[in-house]
Amino acid sequence: MIGEIIAIGDELISGRILNTTSYFAASQLFAAGHEIVAMMTIGDNPALIGQTLINSLERADFVVVTGGLGATTDDLTNAAVSDALQRPTTFYPEILENIRANSKRTPKQVQLSLEKLAWLPAGAHALKSDAQMAGHFLVHDGKPVFFLPGVPHEMKELLVETVISRLAVWEGEDVREVRQKLYRVVNLAETEINRQLDPLAKNDQRVRIGYYPVFPEVHVSLTVTGHNGSEVEELFKEQNRQILVLLGDDCYGTDTETLEEVVGKLLTRRHLTLALAESCTGGLVAHRLTKVSGSSGYFVGGVVAYSNNLKERLLKVDRDILVKFGAVSAETARAMAAGICAVTGADYGLAVTGVAGPTGGTDEKPVGTVYFGLAGPGKTSDFMVNFFGDRWQVQEATAHYALDLIRRELNSF
Amino acid sequence: MIGEIIAIGDELISGRILNTTSYFAASQLFAAGHEIVAMMTIGDNPALIGQTLINSLERADFVVVTGGLGATTDDLTNAAVSDALQRPTTFYPEILENIRANSKRTPKQVQLSLEKLAWLPAGAHALKSDAQMAGHFLVHDGKPVFFLPGVPHEMKELLVETVISRLAVWEGEDVREVRQKLYRVVNLAETEINRQLDPLAKNDQRVRIGYYPVFPEVHVSLTVTGHNGSEVEELFKEQNRQILVLLGDDCYGTDTETLEEVVGKLLTRRHLTLALAESCTGGLVAHRLTKVSGSSGYFVGGVVAYSNNLKERLLKVDRDILVKFGAVSAETARAMAAGICAVTGADYGLAVTGVAGPTGGTDEKPVGTVYFGLAGPGKTSDFMVNFFGDRWQVQEATAHYALDLIRRELNSF
Repeated sequence: MIGEIIAIGDELISGRILNTTSYFAASQLFAAGHEIVAMMTIGDNPALIGQTLINSLERADFVVVTGGLGATTDDLTNAAVSDALQRPTTFYPEILENIRANSKRTPKQVQLSLEKLAWLPAGAHALKSDAQMAGHFLVHDGKPVFFLPGVPHEMKELLVETVISRLAVWEGEDVREVRQKLYRVVNLAETEINRQLDPLAKNDQRVRIGYYPVFPEVHVSLTVTGHNGSEVEELFKEQNRQILVLLGDDCYGTDTETLEEVVGKLLTRRHLTLALAESCTGGLVAHRLTKVSGSSGYFVGGVVAYSNNLKERLLKVDRDILVKFGAVSAETARAMAAGICAVTGADYGLAVTGVAGPTGGTDEKPVGTVYFGLAGPGKTSDFMVNFFGDRWQVQEATAHYALDLIRRELNSF
Repeated sequence: MIGEIIAIGDELISGRILNTTSYFAASQLFAAGHEIVAMMTIGDNPALIGQTLINSLERADFVVVTGGLGATTDDLTNAAVSDALQRPTTFYPEILENIRANSKRTPKQVQLSLEKLAWLPAGAHALKSDAQMAGHFLVHDGKPVFFLPGVPHEMKELLVETVISRLAVWEGEDVREVRQKLYRVVNLAETEINRQLDPLAKNDQRVRIGYYPVFPEVHVSLTVTGHNGSEVEELFKEQNRQILVLLGDDCYGTDTETLEEVVGKLLTRRHLTLALAESCTGGLVAHRLTKVSGSSGYFVGGVVAYSNNLKERLLKVDRDILVKFGAVSAETARAMAAGICAVTGADYGLAVTGVAGPTGGTDEKPVGTVYFGLAGPGKTSDFMVNFFGDRWQVQEATAHYALDLIRRELNSF
C-alpha cells in the first residue's frame, strides 16, 4: 500500500529535536512491503495539522500520524483531527481505564493528568488494549489512519506490534512485490562505487540502485519491484550476486548489520578476544563494541589513555618511546597495542593514537593524523591515516577505521 | 520570514537514512529569526519534487531544498526543478570551472563526473564561488529558493555561510521579534515539569512553553514573540528568570550546552581532574567526555573493565570484594572508583558497574541495576539506580546519570 507519514510537534520544526520516528516508521513500513511517498513534519498548529492530514488522505492508502497525543497542554493533535475530519472529540472511559491499569507504577499526580489521553476523535479505537500509552486508529473514507505517540520508544513499539499487522490484513492491499537489500561499504567513495555498479541497473525499470554516503561509510541500496513474485525473486538474486562480487571485501555487511556486530561475529567464530588502547578516540571504539549484546564474550576491556602518564602506567609504554617519537607515532601505537595485549592477556590488542583537533596539530602531524597499532598472535603492525574534518568527524572516522582494521585482519586467515 | 524545507532522496523516505539536514536547517533558521512551518521529505520522484516546490512557494516566503544535486545518476533535483518552474536546464561553465579548481585533491576520474553539477535551472547562481560542492539559488516569483547538497557537512557549511546571510539582507524581511531559550533538565518527568511551569504561560499569547522528552533528559523551550523588540526582551527576561528558579538544580544547562560540556567547565574552573572506571557503559562515559575539545585538560583517562580479571589487574579491586559482593555491587563500585583514582592520580574517580542487558539479570539484580562509585578528596560514596529499557537505553541513561553525579558533586561546594 502507498502511505504517508505526518510528524507533529513544534520541537521538530524549530530544530530543537531531530525527528527519528518518521525515519523508523518509513524503514519498517518499507520492509513490510509498503511504499512511503512523503513524510511531512509540521508544528502544533491545528489548522495545518488538519489540512496536511486531508491532503495525505487524498494521495495515500493509509496515513501514520505521530506526536501531539500526550497529556501536556501543547498536545493538540486529537482536537485538530476532530475538527478537520468532523469527528467530535469523544471521551472513551474504557481507554482511560486501561491506560490507568497498565501504568500502575506511575504516581497519583501523573495518573490524574492521563484523562486527556482518552478524549479522541469519534470513531477511534485503541491500538492495544494493554498499552500504558496513547495510540489509536480510525478509518476515514475507507482508509486507515494511525495515531502514535511522538516519544520514540513508545511509537516504535506500537508501530511494530500493531500498525504493521493491521495493514497486512487490510482489504484491497496492493500485491506489488518489493525486494530490497542494503550494502554497507567502507574505503570507497560514492562516485567510485556508482561508476562500478551503474551498468547493472541500466535500462531495467524494475531495478533501482541508490548511493548514500553515511559518514564514514557509503550505503548502496538495491530495490527490485514487480507484480510477479518469482520473477522479482530471480532478478533480485542475480543483481545481489553481481553487486557482492563487484564490491568485494569493501562491503563489510548488509541491511542492518553494523561494523561492530561483524567484528563481534568474527571474533566469536574464531574464539578470539580483543582489548583496546585508545587515545584520541577516547573510548568511542570500546563504546561501539559494547553496544552489541554479548560483547563480553570477546571484548575483555581496554584503557582510555588520554595522558602520557597513563600510557606509561597502564599500558607499560616505554618513556623513551614517548620522548623519542612522541605520543602520536607508529612506535607508540605499536607499544600501546602490545602493552594492552600483555596487560589483559587478550589475543588481539588494538591501539589508536592521533590528533583529533581542533587544537594540537603541528606541521609534521596536522589535525587528523592518526596511528593505529595492531598486536596479534606472533606479530605487531602499524598503520597511519590522515583523516579530514572536525573533531567529531576525525573521531568517528578513526573508530570506524580501527574496527575495519581488525575485521580485515580476522578475514585474512 | 516564513520558510519551508524540502529534503529529497529515496534513501530518506525508505528509512535507510535519517534526515538530519532538515533538522539542522530548521534550528539555524529559527535561531536567525525565521519561522519554519513545514518540512517535507520526498523521494527522487521528479513530478513530486516539482509539485512540492510549487506548493511550498505558494505558502512560504523562501524555500530551502536539500539533496539530489550530486553527480550520480539518481540525482534528479535540478532536472525536476527546471521542468516544474519552466526554467530550461542550462550549462554554467564558470560553475564547473570553480568546482574543478577547488577540488584539486580529487582524482581525475571523479573530476570528469563533476560536469553534471554545472547543469542547472536557468537563472541559477552559485551560492559560493570558492565551493568544491554543489549549491545554488534562484529567485522565483520574487522568492528566494536555495538548493543545497544532501551530504550533511556540505549542506551545513553552505547554509551557515551563505543562506542565512542572504536571507538577512532580503528585501521585505518580516520584522517580527522572536526570543527563544532551551532548558535542559535531568531527573524530572515531562508531566511533572509541565505541572510546575504551566501557570507561567497561561493567557499570554506571546509566550509559548514546550516540553520535549529527549531521552534520557527533558528539554523545555521558552518562545516569546511580538512586534516590539524591547517588550519582547522584557517579557523574555522575566519568564526566563521564573523558569530558572522553578527548575533549580535539575536544569543543568541551556540551549546547546551538553552535560559533558557543563562537567568539563566545572572541572576546569575548579582545577580538578577526573578518571573513569567503566564496566556496563563500556567506554560511553569516556567517549562523551572526550567529544569535548580541550577535555585532555581535566580528563586523564580511564579503564573499561568489562571482565573481572581487568577489574583486579588494572583497577586493583580486591578479589575478596568481587567474590563476596559480586561485580555488580556497591562495594565493587567504590573499590573501582578508589582504584582508578589511585592508579591515575586523578582528583576524582567515577565508577560504573551494572547489568546493561538483555541477558545477565538475576532476581536480586535485574537488568538495569547499576551501581555508581565516586571517589574524591577525602571521601568515597556509592549510589544505586534501577534503570528501565533495552540495552541502549540502560547504557545511555547510566552514562547520563554518571555525568550528572559528578556535576552535582562539583556544584556542592
